[in-house]
Order: sequence, then C-alpha cells, then structure tokens
Amino acid sequence: MRLVSVAVTQMACSWDRDKNIARAKELVEEAVAKRAQVVLLQELFETPYFCIETDETYFKEATSVAKNPAIAAMRKLAAKHEVVLPVSFYELADDGRRFNSLAVIDAGGELLGVYRKSHIPDFPAYEEAFYFSPGDTGFRIWDTRFLRLGCGVCWDQWFPEAARIMSLMGAELLLYPTAIGRPTEDSPYEVPNSKPHWQQTMQGHAAANQVMLAASNRIGLESGGAFHIQFYGSSFIADETGTKAVELGEEESQVGVCEFDLDRIADFRKAWGVFRTRRTDLYEPLRSQRAPEYLMSR
Amino acid sequence: MRLVSVAVTQMACSWDRDKNIARAKELVEEAVAKRAQVVLLQELFETPYFCIETDETYFKEATSVAKNPAIAAMRKLAAKHEVVLPVSFYELADDGRRFNSLAVIDAGGELLGVYRKSHIPDFPAYEEAFYFSPGDTGFRIWDTRFLRLGCGVCWDQWFPEAARIMSLMGAELLLYPTAIGRPTEDSPYEVPNSKPHWQQTMQGHAAANQVMLAASNRIGLESGGAFHIQFYGSSFIADETGTKAVELGEEESQVGVCEFDLDRIADFRKAWGVFRTRRTDLYEPLRSQRAPEYLMSR
Repeated sequence: MRLVSVAVTQMACSWDRDKNIARAKELVEEAVAKRAQVVLLQELFETPYFCIETDETYFKEATSVAKNPAIAAMRKLAAKHEVVLPVSFYELADDGRRFNSLAVIDAGGELLGVYRKSHIPDFPAYEEAFYFSPGDTGFRIWDTRFLRLGCGVCWDQWFPEAARIMSLMGAELLLYPTAIGRPTEDSPYEVPNSKPHWQQTMQGHAAANQVMLAASNRIGLESGGAFHIQFYGSSFIADETGTKAVELGEEESQVGVCEFDLDRIADFRKAWGVFRTRRTDLYEPLRSQRAPEYLMSR
Repeated sequence: MRLVSVAVTQMACSWDRDKNIARAKELVEEAVAKRAQVVLLQELFETPYFCIETDETYFKEATSVAKNPAIAAMRKLAAKHEVVLPVSFYELADDGRRFNSLAVIDAGGELLGVYRKSHIPDFPAYEEAFYFSPGDTGFRIWDTRFLRLGCGVCWDQWFPEAARIMSLMGAELLLYPTAIGRPTEDSPYEVPNSKPHWQQTMQGHAAANQVMLAASNRIGLESGGAFHIQFYGSSFIADETGTKAVELGEEESQVGVCEFDLDRIADFRKAWGVFRTRRTDLYEPLRSQRAPEYLMSR
C-alpha cells in the first residue's frame, strides 16, 4: 500500500490580498488537520477574478515568482506542515509577458517550478486572452515527495489532450485550480448552468486515464463590467473510474479530503491495459485536423 | 431547428444467427415506431461474444461484407424505414485478414463504407487480439441523410483520442456498439464492476467534445473457457454536456430513443469555444510520449 491523502478547498476572494492569503492559509491548515498531504487551492485566489472584464489597470496585479506574496507564504506553510502546495498566481515574466501560472511547491517548501496555463479562454466574462499569454512551458509533471503530480489550470480542464499527456508522462494525480461560475440573471449573456458539464468533463479525464483528479473552484458573487458571476464552488475529487469521491457545496468555504492507495490504482491501470493498446499511428489528426469552420469562429 | 432522433438497443445473443438477426430487426422496428432516425445495434450481435475464449473454430464466423447476412438484412430494413443503421460484424477481408468491423448503412439502404475497429483489447475474457487485426481504416466519419456520424467500436470507447478525432472531423453524434459485462463470481479473475467507469469515460467524451454520444451494449450470461460474463446492458445516450438522457436496464431487451436539436448544439459548441482554443503545438506527446513501463506491460 502507498497511501496518499488529497484535499480540495474553496473560498471567496476580495480585493484585500493579505486577507485572501490568510484565508488560504487557514484552509491549508484545516486540510492538514484532516491529514492531507497534497492541498489544492483555487485559481488566482489573491484577488477577485478580474478577467470578468477587460481593464488594463489589473495588469499591475502580476508579479514575478520571486516577489509573489502567496508563493512566499505557501512555501513556509508547505515546509512547516510537510504538504505539497501548488499555488496559482498571475505571473509577470522577465521579458514582460504575463501568464496564468502555477508554482508547484513540494512538501519541504522547495519550489519545484512553474507551469504556465496552456489553454486560454476568451469569451464574455472570461476574458483571459486580454491578461495572459498562452503558456510556453508545455504540460509538465512534478515528482513531489508523495507522488508524481500533473497540474493544469482551469480552462485546461476542458481538454482531454492535456489530461492524457500528463498521464502519459506518469502523473498519478491531476489537479485543476479553477474559477468558474454562473452569470446571474441580470448579465447580458445567457449561459446554461455549466456545473454538471464542468464536472463531467473532468470525471471523463479521470476515467479515461484511470487517474485521481481534483479540482478546487472559487465561491462568491463577483462583478465586473456588465457581468455578475456566481462562482459555484463544487470542488471535487474523482477516483480512477471517474466517480466523485468528495464534493463540496456551491456556497460554503470548505475543505474536503480523500485518501487513495496508489499501489492499488497502479495495479488497476496495468490490468485495464488502455495504455498498451493505444494506436499512436492513428493520432496525427489530433495535431493536424482542423475542426469545421463553424466551431472555429467566434 | 434541425431535429434528429437517435435510438439505443440491447439484446441477448445465441448461436442461432438467423434468430439473432430477426431479434435485431424487431429492435430496429420498435425504434422506428418510436420515430428513431438513427438506430444503434450492439457489437457482433450475430453470435455470442466468442472472444471470451481463444478458439480457432470461431474464425469461420467471419464473412466478407458482400456475404454477411446481417448487413444484407439491415440494408433492406434501412431502405424500408428510412433509418441510418450501423452494423457491427466479424469481417473477413479479401487478403484473408479478419477485423472487428462496422458497416455504415444510410437511410436509403446505401452501404456508405466500413470502419475497422482500431483499438483491440487483449486481456482475459476479451481476447480480441486472437480474432481481429487492428483496424487499418483510421477513424472515419459518415455523411448520412440526417447528420454527420462518427462511429467507434467497443474498446475504442476508452480512448479520448478517437472521440476527439471524429469530433474534429465534424461528427455530430458518436456511436459505440459494445459488448461488456461483469465476470461472474465463479470466474478465475477478479474484476471490479466496470459499469460506472464504462459510462463515465464516454460521458466524458460527450462533455469534452460537446457532442451527442450513444452506446448499445449486449445483455445476457455467456460462457467460454473458464469464464462467465454477465453482460450488463445499460445502453445509454448522453447529451452534449455528458449528462445521460436515456439509460436502459441491466437485464432487459429494450429500446431507448432521444431527440436532439443539432442547430442548438452547434450554437452551444461554437459559443463554448473549445475547438478554437486548442493548442495543437503542444499535442505531439500524444503520439510520441510513451507511458511509464508499468502501464505498458501485461
């Protein structure tokens, strides 16, 4: 048996950065008290989700890895509690570009490196292309103290390609810090409730790759421009068959923890045989086949 | 509005081929009575699932397209009722190779062509590598009278790559004829109940590609060698968010029908923007990255 315990969290965010970081620390400590070894905080928890509108004044929220206060705080916390802590943050790169990034901190407080979000959404109320360059790191995996980790960031979660690549690289757990919600009724754009769709897509990644998967989403009502988003939480952990093992509420700030046996899952994946029966000779269209025009235009 | 009505079916199979074909015809007629325009029959319904064991005597069950009685019967039925009918069969190719194939019949009875199952399982009680060469057609889509169809066969359903490629090619509906079940307790090999995992994986394909998906599975207890499989039916149709819209029982021979508006789904897929935010520059590992050795060996 090789047991590992994973936590999802969720919280509301204000424009008080110190307060947000303090609240994130409380969530990590609550997870540690529940024996979590890997704790997933939500996407961009230092601020409200400013991508709800396009406003250059938010560019100044970006920081380098070295100057980011959340990373500094979480490195100390990771070392203190011996817990793996991926931290989502708005990165200002040396060359002046900005990215939606994730700093992966190991259980001794070591900064293992940074992943830059590959897939960038650009539609009303999720105007990320205005703020972030598409990531240039490619998909990465992280050999942490407890397990090999694969991390995407939010919109990456809609792409089976990302989940599969991280799984091929050996990820034993896929993590997705997230910011997704429902526009309220007075928003100028009708969008269906994406919550079941959002969970179903990631449960599919877990099932297809037979890998644990966890997503932490924000809660709370946030406004910007003409939009009001009710972030719906529902952070969850799926097992290697895609079944939800933990699911949090839509409105409460919470922590959920689940323990898995990595040896059992490795045996299951080997017996199932999906990875050895892939047809890599047939997969070139994943790169070269362009979708029909009506799916490509805005 | 562009409405299309899709049916899933399920039945038990014996070694009386004529009887199996007659039962399949009844199911199609029941679906037509419920106004179905596309009817999915299960995998290899002309015979029991002989792949439960390895026995050369079953090689003789393979036929050419021209000589296959199920295809001939279903072509007549398709023309009579103006219904699209993909037919799974054991194909004997001109060069002597055998494939697990699908003949796609359009609503005028025209044979549009054949897809040969790409992914071949080879583990206890699903010894398909003994009977079938890996398909050499690649993934295909079919412009039928009512919609553009993508079809995989059974084990193909575990691969996000196949679903994505067919979606990129423009598939508006993904179909998977299937034969999957639980080994009974007296089988020499312990396997967990794969039903939720099986559904979850395909619901994930539907959700990630925002495409309708239907799977028809067999029912009944079948035995071969030391194995006894209880095929668990549970044929289902998922909508474009991966939510199950129709699900049949585990033991009953049944038909389930669901109607969709293709125009509404096309608008949804376009608005969602997944296809235009793919990162094809990062997907090469889907072909070149080899999974860890422990996932590749038997």
